[in-house]
Amino acid sequence: MNLLLLAASELNDQGQVTLTDRRHQHLRDVHQLRAGSRLQAGVLNGYCGEALVLEHSADFTRIELQALDTPPPAPLPMTLLLALPRPRMLARSLEHLTTLGVKKLVLMQTARVEKSYWQSPELKPEKIHQHLLLGLEQAKDTLLPEVIFQPRFKPFVEDQLPELSHNSLKLLAHPGDYPFCPRGLSEQVTLAIGPEGGFVDFEVDLLQQQGFQPVQLGERILRVETAVTALLARLF
Amino acid sequence: MNLLLLAASELNDQGQVTLTDRRHQHLRDVHQLRAGSRLQAGVLNGYCGEALVLEHSADFTRIELQALDTPPPAPLPMTLLLALPRPRMLARSLEHLTTLGVKKLVLMQTARVEKSYWQSPELKPEKIHQHLLLGLEQAKDTLLPEVIFQPRFKPFVEDQLPELSHNSLKLLAHPGDYPFCPRGLSEQVTLAIGPEGGFVDFEVDLLQQQGFQPVQLGERILRVETAVTALLARLF
Repeated sequence: MNLLLLAASELNDQGQVTLTDRRHQHLRDVHQLRAGSRLQAGVLNGYCGEALVLEHSADFTRIELQALDTPPPAPLPMTLLLALPRPRMLARSLEHLTTLGVKKLVLMQTARVEKSYWQSPELKPEKIHQHLLLGLEQAKDTLLPEVIFQPRFKPFVEDQLPELSHNSLKLLAHPGDYPFCPRGLSEQVTLAIGPEGGFVDFEVDLLQQQGFQPVQLGERILRVETAVTALLARLF
Repeated sequence: MNLLLLAASELNDQGQVTLTDRRHQHLRDVHQLRAGSRLQAGVLNGYCGEALVLEHSADFTRIELQALDTPPPAPLPMTLLLALPRPRMLARSLEHLTTLGVKKLVLMQTARVEKSYWQSPELKPEKIHQHLLLGLEQAKDTLLPEVIFQPRFKPFVEDQLPELSHNSLKLLAHPGDYPFCPRGLSEQVTLAIGPEGGFVDFEVDLLQQQGFQPVQLGERILRVETAVTALLARLF
Protein backbone atom coordinates (compact mmCIF):
# COMPACT_ATOMS: atom_id res chain seq x y z
CA MET A 1 0.00 0.00 0.00
CA ASN A 2 1.84 3.07 -1.29
CA LEU A 3 -1.20 5.31 -0.79
CA LEU A 4 -3.89 5.10 1.89
CA LEU A 5 -7.18 5.49 -0.01
CA LEU A 6 -10.35 6.80 1.63
CA ALA A 7 -13.83 7.43 0.27
CA ALA A 8 -15.04 11.00 0.80
CA SER A 9 -18.13 9.55 2.49
CA GLU A 10 -15.96 8.02 5.23
CA LEU A 11 -14.63 11.37 6.36
CA ASN A 12 -16.27 13.65 8.91
CA ASP A 13 -16.34 17.46 8.55
CA GLN A 14 -12.78 17.72 9.86
CA GLY A 15 -11.53 15.18 7.29
CA GLN A 16 -11.07 12.59 10.04
CA VAL A 17 -11.87 8.88 10.07
CA THR A 18 -11.34 5.90 12.34
CA LEU A 19 -10.19 2.82 10.46
CA THR A 20 -10.64 -0.74 11.71
CA ASP A 21 -10.65 -2.66 8.43
CA ARG A 22 -7.98 -4.02 6.07
CA ARG A 23 -6.34 -0.61 5.90
CA HIS A 24 -5.94 -0.40 9.68
CA GLN A 25 -4.58 -3.93 9.76
CA HIS A 26 -2.09 -3.13 7.02
CA LEU A 27 -0.97 0.06 8.77
CA ARG A 28 -0.59 -1.87 12.03
CA ASP A 29 1.26 -4.84 10.56
CA VAL A 30 3.47 -3.25 7.91
CA HIS A 31 4.01 0.42 8.76
CA GLN A 32 5.59 1.56 12.01
CA LEU A 33 3.04 4.16 13.12
CA ARG A 34 2.37 6.26 16.18
CA ALA A 35 0.39 9.42 16.88
CA GLY A 36 2.00 12.15 14.79
CA SER A 37 3.14 9.86 11.96
CA ARG A 38 2.31 10.99 8.45
CA LEU A 39 1.74 8.91 5.37
CA GLN A 40 0.63 9.47 1.81
CA ALA A 41 -3.12 9.36 1.41
CA GLY A 42 -5.80 10.22 -1.11
CA VAL A 43 -9.54 10.49 -1.55
CA LEU A 44 -11.11 8.02 -3.95
CA ASN A 45 -11.76 9.83 -7.23
CA GLY A 46 -10.21 12.93 -5.65
CA TYR A 47 -6.88 14.47 -4.72
CA CYS A 48 -3.84 13.17 -2.86
CA GLY A 49 -2.23 14.56 0.26
CA GLU A 50 -1.21 13.31 3.68
CA ALA A 51 -2.81 11.41 6.51
CA LEU A 52 -1.77 12.56 9.97
CA VAL A 53 -2.13 9.74 12.48
CA LEU A 54 -4.13 11.04 15.47
CA GLU A 55 -4.34 7.76 17.36
CA HIS A 56 -3.09 4.27 16.64
CA SER A 57 -3.73 1.11 18.61
CA ALA A 58 -3.98 -2.61 17.97
CA ASP A 59 -7.70 -2.16 17.26
CA PHE A 60 -7.99 1.03 15.24
CA THR A 61 -6.15 3.87 13.52
CA ARG A 62 -7.60 7.37 13.66
CA ILE A 63 -6.33 9.77 11.02
CA GLU A 64 -6.94 13.22 9.61
CA LEU A 65 -6.43 14.01 5.93
CA GLN A 66 -4.43 17.16 5.18
CA ALA A 67 -3.00 19.08 2.24
CA LEU A 68 -5.20 17.40 -0.36
CA ASP A 69 -3.79 19.41 -3.24
CA THR A 70 -1.95 16.91 -5.45
CA PRO A 71 -3.81 15.51 -8.45
CA PRO A 72 -3.50 11.76 -9.10
CA PRO A 73 -1.25 10.53 -11.95
CA ALA A 74 -2.57 11.07 -15.47
CA PRO A 75 -4.80 8.26 -16.74
CA LEU A 76 -3.82 6.29 -19.84
CA PRO A 77 -5.78 7.70 -22.80
CA MET A 78 -7.40 4.40 -23.60
CA THR A 79 -10.30 1.99 -23.41
CA LEU A 80 -9.32 -1.65 -22.94
CA LEU A 81 -11.53 -4.43 -24.32
CA LEU A 82 -10.50 -7.67 -22.68
CA ALA A 83 -11.94 -11.10 -23.33
CA LEU A 84 -12.99 -12.26 -19.86
CA PRO A 85 -9.94 -14.12 -18.46
CA ARG A 86 -10.22 -17.11 -16.17
CA PRO A 87 -10.90 -15.96 -12.64
CA ARG A 88 -7.40 -16.08 -11.11
CA MET A 89 -5.96 -14.38 -14.18
CA LEU A 90 -8.73 -11.77 -14.05
CA ALA A 91 -7.83 -10.83 -10.49
CA ARG A 92 -4.18 -10.23 -11.35
CA SER A 93 -4.97 -8.53 -14.66
CA LEU A 94 -7.30 -6.09 -12.88
CA GLU A 95 -4.48 -5.08 -10.53
CA HIS A 96 -1.91 -4.74 -13.33
CA LEU A 97 -4.11 -2.65 -15.60
CA THR A 98 -5.31 -0.42 -12.77
CA THR A 99 -1.74 0.16 -11.63
CA LEU A 100 -0.80 1.07 -15.19
CA GLY A 101 -3.60 3.68 -15.42
CA VAL A 102 -6.45 2.14 -17.45
CA LYS A 103 -9.72 3.93 -16.57
CA LYS A 104 -12.21 2.17 -18.80
CA LEU A 105 -12.30 -1.62 -19.07
CA VAL A 106 -14.77 -3.74 -20.97
CA LEU A 107 -14.81 -7.44 -20.01
CA MET A 108 -16.40 -9.27 -22.91
CA GLN A 109 -17.47 -12.71 -23.97
CA THR A 110 -15.71 -14.22 -27.00
CA ALA A 111 -15.90 -17.67 -28.56
CA ARG A 112 -12.94 -19.01 -26.59
CA VAL A 113 -14.06 -17.65 -23.20
CA GLU A 114 -15.51 -20.45 -21.09
CA LYS A 115 -19.10 -19.50 -20.25
CA SER A 116 -18.58 -20.66 -16.67
CA TYR A 117 -16.18 -17.76 -16.05
CA TRP A 118 -19.19 -15.44 -15.94
CA GLN A 119 -20.45 -17.28 -12.85
CA SER A 120 -17.18 -16.86 -10.92
CA PRO A 121 -17.30 -15.14 -7.51
CA GLU A 122 -14.37 -13.04 -8.82
CA LEU A 123 -16.92 -11.09 -10.89
CA LYS A 124 -18.91 -9.92 -7.88
CA PRO A 125 -18.76 -6.12 -7.69
CA GLU A 126 -17.11 -6.13 -4.25
CA LYS A 127 -14.36 -8.49 -5.45
CA ILE A 128 -13.71 -6.43 -8.57
CA HIS A 129 -13.69 -3.26 -6.46
CA GLN A 130 -11.12 -4.77 -4.10
CA HIS A 131 -8.69 -5.57 -6.93
CA LEU A 132 -9.12 -2.09 -8.39
CA LEU A 133 -8.37 -0.54 -4.99
CA LEU A 134 -5.21 -2.64 -4.65
CA GLY A 135 -4.09 -1.46 -8.08
CA LEU A 136 -4.76 2.18 -7.18
CA GLU A 137 -2.98 1.92 -3.81
CA GLN A 138 0.05 0.44 -5.59
CA ALA A 139 0.24 3.24 -8.20
CA LYS A 140 -0.65 6.07 -5.76
CA ASP A 141 -3.70 6.74 -7.91
CA THR A 142 -7.23 7.67 -6.78
CA LEU A 143 -9.31 7.41 -9.97
CA LEU A 144 -11.35 4.23 -9.90
CA PRO A 145 -11.58 2.51 -13.31
CA GLU A 146 -14.99 1.87 -14.80
CA VAL A 147 -15.60 -1.83 -15.50
CA ILE A 148 -18.29 -2.79 -18.01
CA PHE A 149 -19.50 -6.34 -18.64
CA GLN A 150 -20.43 -7.36 -22.17
CA PRO A 151 -21.52 -11.00 -22.13
CA ARG A 152 -22.57 -10.93 -25.81
CA PHE A 153 -19.79 -10.20 -28.30
CA LYS A 154 -21.65 -9.51 -31.55
CA PRO A 155 -24.29 -7.07 -30.30
CA PHE A 156 -21.61 -5.28 -28.28
CA VAL A 157 -19.23 -4.91 -31.22
CA GLU A 158 -21.92 -3.98 -33.72
CA ASP A 159 -24.16 -1.74 -31.64
CA GLN A 160 -22.07 -0.19 -28.88
CA LEU A 161 -18.42 -0.33 -29.89
CA PRO A 162 -18.67 2.29 -32.70
CA GLU A 163 -19.75 4.91 -30.15
CA LEU A 164 -17.36 3.66 -27.45
CA SER A 165 -14.32 3.71 -29.75
CA HIS A 166 -15.26 6.90 -31.64
CA ASN A 167 -12.28 9.16 -32.42
CA SER A 168 -9.69 6.69 -31.15
CA LEU A 169 -6.99 4.57 -32.76
CA LYS A 170 -8.53 1.09 -32.81
CA LEU A 171 -6.10 -1.78 -32.28
CA LEU A 172 -6.60 -5.50 -31.99
CA ALA A 173 -3.75 -7.51 -30.46
CA HIS A 174 -3.58 -10.72 -32.43
CA PRO A 175 -0.71 -13.07 -33.24
CA GLY A 176 0.04 -13.42 -36.92
CA ASP A 177 1.58 -11.71 -39.89
CA TYR A 178 0.39 -8.21 -38.92
CA PRO A 179 2.25 -4.93 -38.30
CA PHE A 180 3.99 -4.73 -34.93
CA CYS A 181 2.15 -2.93 -32.17
CA PRO A 182 3.04 0.79 -32.31
CA ARG A 183 5.04 2.46 -29.54
CA GLY A 184 4.92 5.62 -27.47
CA LEU A 185 1.51 6.92 -28.53
CA SER A 186 -0.14 9.97 -27.02
CA GLU A 187 -3.48 9.74 -28.83
CA GLN A 188 -6.63 8.03 -27.58
CA VAL A 189 -6.55 4.25 -28.16
CA THR A 190 -9.13 1.48 -28.00
CA LEU A 191 -7.29 -1.83 -27.62
CA ALA A 192 -8.88 -5.27 -27.87
CA ILE A 193 -7.12 -8.27 -26.30
CA GLY A 194 -8.41 -11.78 -26.86
CA PRO A 195 -8.62 -14.78 -24.55
CA GLU A 196 -6.10 -17.61 -24.11
CA GLY A 197 -6.16 -19.15 -27.59
CA GLY A 198 -6.98 -15.82 -29.19
CA PHE A 199 -9.96 -14.40 -31.06
CA VAL A 200 -11.59 -16.65 -33.69
CA ASP A 201 -11.61 -15.52 -37.32
CA PHE A 202 -15.20 -14.32 -37.14
CA GLU A 203 -14.33 -12.02 -34.24
CA VAL A 204 -11.24 -10.63 -35.97
CA ASP A 205 -13.34 -9.95 -39.08
CA LEU A 206 -16.07 -8.23 -37.07
CA LEU A 207 -13.58 -6.03 -35.25
CA GLN A 208 -11.82 -5.20 -38.52
CA GLN A 209 -15.17 -4.15 -39.98
CA GLN A 210 -15.40 -1.69 -37.07
CA GLY A 211 -12.02 -0.21 -37.99
CA PHE A 212 -9.78 -2.22 -35.67
CA GLN A 213 -6.28 -2.92 -37.05
CA PRO A 214 -4.64 -6.18 -35.99
CA VAL A 215 -1.17 -5.71 -34.47
CA GLN A 216 1.24 -8.30 -33.10
CA LEU A 217 3.91 -8.49 -30.40
CA GLY A 218 6.09 -11.15 -32.04
CA GLU A 219 6.09 -14.90 -32.20
CA ARG A 220 6.07 -15.54 -28.44
CA ILE A 221 2.61 -16.42 -27.12
CA LEU A 222 2.02 -14.46 -23.91
CA ARG A 223 -0.39 -15.23 -21.10
CA VAL A 224 -3.21 -12.70 -20.89
CA GLU A 225 -1.86 -10.92 -17.82
CA THR A 226 1.61 -10.66 -19.39
CA ALA A 227 0.13 -9.45 -22.68
CA VAL A 228 -1.95 -6.75 -20.97
CA THR A 229 1.09 -5.24 -19.25
CA ALA A 230 3.35 -5.66 -22.28
CA LEU A 231 0.89 -3.98 -24.64
CA LEU A 232 0.17 -1.04 -22.33
CA ALA A 233 3.88 -0.49 -21.62
CA ARG A 234 4.65 -0.51 -25.31
CA LEU A 235 1.73 1.66 -26.46
CA PHE A 236 2.25 4.54 -24.00
CA MET B 1 1.08 -25.60 -22.63
CA ASN B 2 1.60 -24.29 -26.17
CA LEU B 3 4.66 -26.48 -26.72
CA LEU B 4 5.38 -29.96 -25.36
CA LEU B 5 8.97 -29.78 -24.10
CA LEU B 6 11.21 -32.84 -23.80
CA ALA B 7 14.79 -33.27 -22.67
CA ALA B 8 17.00 -34.97 -25.25
CA SER B 9 17.96 -37.50 -22.57
CA GLU B 10 14.33 -38.66 -22.34
CA LEU B 11 14.22 -39.77 -25.96
CA ASN B 12 15.24 -43.18 -27.27
CA ASP B 13 17.12 -43.67 -30.55
CA GLN B 14 13.86 -43.34 -32.51
CA GLY B 15 13.02 -40.03 -30.81
CA GLN B 16 10.27 -41.73 -28.83
CA VAL B 17 9.28 -41.35 -25.19
CA THR B 18 6.50 -42.52 -22.87
CA LEU B 19 5.20 -39.75 -20.63
CA THR B 20 3.43 -40.33 -17.32
CA ASP B 21 4.17 -37.07 -15.53
CA ARG B 22 2.62 -33.56 -15.52
CA ARG B 23 2.92 -33.41 -19.30
CA HIS B 24 0.92 -36.61 -19.77
CA GLN B 25 -1.70 -35.37 -17.30
CA HIS B 26 -1.97 -32.06 -19.11
CA LEU B 27 -2.29 -33.76 -22.50
CA ARG B 28 -4.93 -36.10 -21.07
CA ASP B 29 -6.95 -33.41 -19.29
CA VAL B 30 -6.72 -30.44 -21.66
CA HIS B 31 -5.97 -31.70 -25.16
CA GLN B 32 -8.23 -34.12 -27.04
CA LEU B 33 -5.69 -36.70 -28.15
CA ARG B 34 -5.73 -40.09 -29.79
CA ALA B 35 -3.18 -42.19 -31.65
CA GLY B 36 -2.25 -40.21 -34.74
CA SER B 37 -2.77 -36.77 -33.16
CA ARG B 38 0.00 -34.25 -33.70
CA LEU B 39 1.01 -31.37 -31.47
CA GLN B 40 3.80 -28.81 -31.35
CA ALA B 41 6.83 -30.06 -29.45
CA GLY B 42 10.45 -29.17 -28.88
CA VAL B 43 13.66 -30.44 -27.34
CA LEU B 44 14.95 -28.50 -24.35
CA ASN B 45 17.77 -26.26 -25.56
CA GLY B 46 17.15 -27.60 -29.05
CA TYR B 47 14.81 -27.32 -32.02
CA CYS B 48 11.04 -27.37 -32.35
CA GLY B 49 8.91 -29.72 -34.42
CA GLU B 50 5.98 -32.04 -33.92
CA ALA B 51 5.05 -34.83 -31.57
CA LEU B 52 3.11 -37.66 -33.18
CA VAL B 53 0.99 -39.48 -30.60
CA LEU B 54 1.68 -43.23 -30.90
CA GLU B 55 -0.46 -44.33 -27.96
CA HIS B 56 -2.59 -42.46 -25.45
CA SER B 57 -4.38 -43.85 -22.41
CA ALA B 58 -5.46 -42.64 -18.99
CA ASP B 59 -2.07 -43.68 -17.61
CA PHE B 60 0.47 -42.66 -20.23
CA THR B 61 1.09 -40.94 -23.56
CA ARG B 62 3.64 -42.37 -25.96
CA ILE B 63 4.93 -40.00 -28.60
CA GLU B 64 7.54 -39.70 -31.32
CA LEU B 65 9.22 -36.41 -32.15
CA GLN B 66 9.39 -35.53 -35.83
CA ALA B 67 10.49 -32.70 -38.11
CA LEU B 68 12.70 -31.02 -35.51
CA ASP B 69 13.85 -28.29 -37.86
CA THR B 70 12.40 -25.05 -36.47
CA PRO B 71 14.64 -22.91 -34.26
CA PRO B 72 13.12 -21.46 -31.08
CA PRO B 73 12.19 -17.73 -31.00
CA ALA B 74 15.11 -15.30 -30.76
CA PRO B 75 16.24 -14.56 -27.18
CA LEU B 76 16.09 -11.00 -25.83
CA PRO B 77 19.61 -9.54 -26.07
CA MET B 78 19.84 -8.86 -22.37
CA THR B 79 20.94 -9.77 -18.88
CA LEU B 80 18.41 -9.02 -16.15
CA LEU B 81 19.58 -8.19 -12.63
CA LEU B 82 16.62 -8.55 -10.30
CA ALA B 83 16.58 -7.89 -6.57
CA LEU B 84 15.24 -11.17 -5.15
CA PRO B 85 11.44 -10.71 -5.00
CA ARG B 86 9.30 -12.23 -2.28
CA PRO B 87 8.65 -15.89 -3.08
CA ARG B 88 5.18 -15.69 -4.66
CA MET B 89 6.24 -12.72 -6.77
CA LEU B 90 9.44 -14.56 -7.76
CA ALA B 91 7.45 -17.49 -9.10
CA ARG B 92 5.30 -15.30 -11.33
CA SER B 93 8.20 -13.07 -12.37
CA LEU B 94 10.20 -16.13 -13.47
CA GLU B 95 7.35 -17.18 -15.75
CA HIS B 96 6.83 -13.70 -17.18
CA LEU B 97 10.50 -13.05 -17.93
CA THR B 98 11.04 -16.53 -19.39
CA THR B 99 8.00 -16.12 -21.63
CA LEU B 100 9.35 -12.77 -22.79
CA GLY B 101 12.72 -14.29 -23.75
CA VAL B 102 15.23 -13.41 -21.00
CA LYS B 103 18.08 -15.94 -21.06
CA LYS B 104 20.31 -14.69 -18.27
CA LEU B 105 18.88 -13.72 -14.89
CA VAL B 106 20.79 -12.67 -11.78
CA LEU B 107 18.78 -12.79 -8.54
CA MET B 108 20.60 -10.53 -6.10
CA GLN B 109 20.45 -9.36 -2.52
CA THR B 110 19.87 -5.64 -1.96
CA ALA B 111 19.28 -3.64 1.23
CA ARG B 112 15.48 -3.84 0.95
CA VAL B 113 15.34 -7.57 0.19
CA GLU B 114 14.26 -9.50 3.28
CA LYS B 115 17.02 -11.96 4.11
CA SER B 116 14.44 -14.67 4.81
CA TYR B 117 13.53 -14.77 1.10
CA TRP B 118 16.80 -16.62 0.46
CA GLN B 119 15.52 -19.52 2.60
CA SER B 120 12.29 -19.90 0.64
CA PRO B 121 11.50 -23.30 -0.91
CA GLU B 122 10.75 -21.32 -4.11
CA LEU B 123 14.52 -20.98 -4.57
CA LYS B 124 15.12 -24.72 -4.75
CA PRO B 125 16.55 -25.59 -8.16
CA GLU B 126 13.65 -27.91 -9.03
CA LYS B 127 11.08 -25.19 -8.22
CA ILE B 128 12.95 -22.59 -10.27
CA HIS B 129 13.29 -25.09 -13.12
CA GLN B 130 9.55 -25.77 -13.07
CA HIS B 131 8.69 -22.06 -13.44
CA LEU B 132 11.20 -21.68 -16.26
CA LEU B 133 9.66 -24.67 -18.06
CA LEU B 134 6.16 -23.18 -17.73
CA GLY B 135 7.44 -19.93 -19.19
CA LEU B 136 9.09 -21.75 -22.11
CA GLU B 137 6.01 -23.88 -22.81
CA GLN B 138 3.88 -20.72 -22.88
CA ALA B 139 6.17 -18.92 -25.36
CA LYS B 140 6.91 -22.02 -27.51
CA ASP B 141 10.56 -21.57 -26.60
CA THR B 142 13.14 -24.26 -25.80
CA LEU B 143 16.15 -22.30 -24.49
CA LEU B 144 16.33 -22.58 -20.72
CA PRO B 145 17.38 -19.33 -19.02
CA GLU B 146 20.44 -19.34 -16.80
CA VAL B 147 19.66 -18.24 -13.24
CA ILE B 148 22.51 -16.97 -11.06
CA PHE B 149 22.21 -16.23 -7.32
CA GLN B 150 24.16 -13.30 -5.89
CA PRO B 151 23.42 -13.05 -2.18
CA ARG B 152 26.01 -10.27 -1.62
CA PHE B 153 25.37 -7.05 -3.51
CA LYS B 154 28.63 -5.10 -3.17
CA PRO B 155 31.11 -7.84 -4.12
CA PHE B 156 28.86 -8.85 -7.00
CA VAL B 157 28.57 -5.31 -8.39
CA GLU B 158 32.23 -4.44 -7.87
CA ASP B 159 33.93 -7.68 -8.84
CA GLN B 160 31.67 -9.54 -11.27
CA LEU B 161 29.27 -7.05 -12.84
CA PRO B 162 31.91 -5.23 -14.96
CA GLU B 163 32.65 -8.46 -16.83
CA LEU B 164 29.00 -9.55 -16.92
CA SER B 165 27.77 -6.24 -18.35
CA HIS B 166 30.74 -5.62 -20.67
CA ASN B 167 29.79 -4.11 -24.05
CA SER B 168 26.14 -3.64 -23.12
CA LEU B 169 23.90 -0.64 -22.48
CA LYS B 170 23.63 -0.55 -18.69
CA LEU B 171 20.28 0.60 -17.32
CA LEU B 172 18.94 0.89 -13.81
CA ALA B 173 15.15 1.17 -13.43
CA HIS B 174 14.59 3.63 -10.62
CA PRO B 175 11.75 6.04 -9.89
CA GLY B 176 12.76 9.70 -9.83
CA ASP B 177 13.72 12.60 -12.01
CA TYR B 178 15.67 10.54 -14.55
CA PRO B 179 15.36 10.11 -18.32
CA PHE B 180 12.51 7.87 -19.41
CA CYS B 181 13.38 4.26 -20.19
CA PRO B 182 14.35 4.02 -23.88
CA ARG B 183 12.21 2.10 -26.38
CA GLY B 184 12.66 -0.41 -29.14
CA LEU B 185 16.37 -1.21 -28.68
CA SER B 186 18.22 -3.86 -30.62
CA GLU B 187 21.55 -3.65 -28.81
CA GLN B 188 22.68 -5.75 -25.83
CA VAL B 189 21.27 -4.43 -22.53
CA THR B 190 21.99 -5.12 -18.88
CA LEU B 191 18.98 -4.00 -16.83
CA ALA B 192 18.86 -3.76 -13.03
CA ILE B 193 15.47 -3.79 -11.27
CA GLY B 194 15.22 -3.11 -7.55
CA PRO B 195 13.00 -4.65 -4.87
CA GLU B 196 9.66 -3.38 -3.57
CA GLY B 197 10.67 -0.04 -2.10
CA GLY B 198 13.50 0.36 -4.60
CA PHE B 199 17.26 0.45 -4.41
CA VAL B 200 18.80 2.51 -1.58
CA ASP B 201 21.02 5.48 -2.48
CA PHE B 202 24.22 3.54 -1.85
CA GLU B 203 23.16 0.90 -4.34
CA VAL B 204 22.20 3.46 -6.98
CA ASP B 205 25.58 5.16 -6.53
CA LEU B 206 27.49 1.90 -6.80
CA LEU B 207 25.63 0.88 -9.96
CA GLN B 208 26.17 4.35 -11.44
CA GLN B 209 29.90 3.99 -10.76
CA GLN B 210 29.76 0.83 -12.88
CA GLY B 211 28.21 2.79 -15.76
CA PHE B 212 24.53 2.11 -15.11
CA GLN B 213 22.18 4.96 -16.11
CA PRO B 214 19.03 5.39 -14.03
CA VAL B 215 15.84 5.44 -16.11
CA GLN B 216 12.24 5.80 -15.01
CA LEU B 217 8.83 4.59 -16.19
CA GLY B 218 6.77 7.51 -14.82
CA GLU B 219 5.23 8.40 -11.50
CA ARG B 220 3.21 5.21 -11.04
CA ILE B 221 4.87 2.74 -8.67
CA LEU B 222 4.66 -0.73 -10.20
CA ARG B 223 4.84 -4.08 -8.46
CA VAL B 224 8.00 -5.97 -9.35
CA GLU B 225 6.27 -8.46 -11.63
CA THR B 226 4.45 -5.66 -13.47
CA ALA B 227 7.67 -3.63 -13.74
CA VAL B 228 9.63 -6.58 -15.18
CA THR B 229 7.11 -7.10 -17.99
CA ALA B 230 6.61 -3.37 -18.62
CA LEU B 231 10.36 -2.69 -18.87
CA LEU B 232 11.07 -5.63 -21.18
CA ALA B 233 8.11 -4.78 -23.43
CA ARG B 234 9.25 -1.19 -23.69
CA LEU B 235 12.98 -1.87 -24.20
CA PHE B 236 12.62 -4.41 -27.03
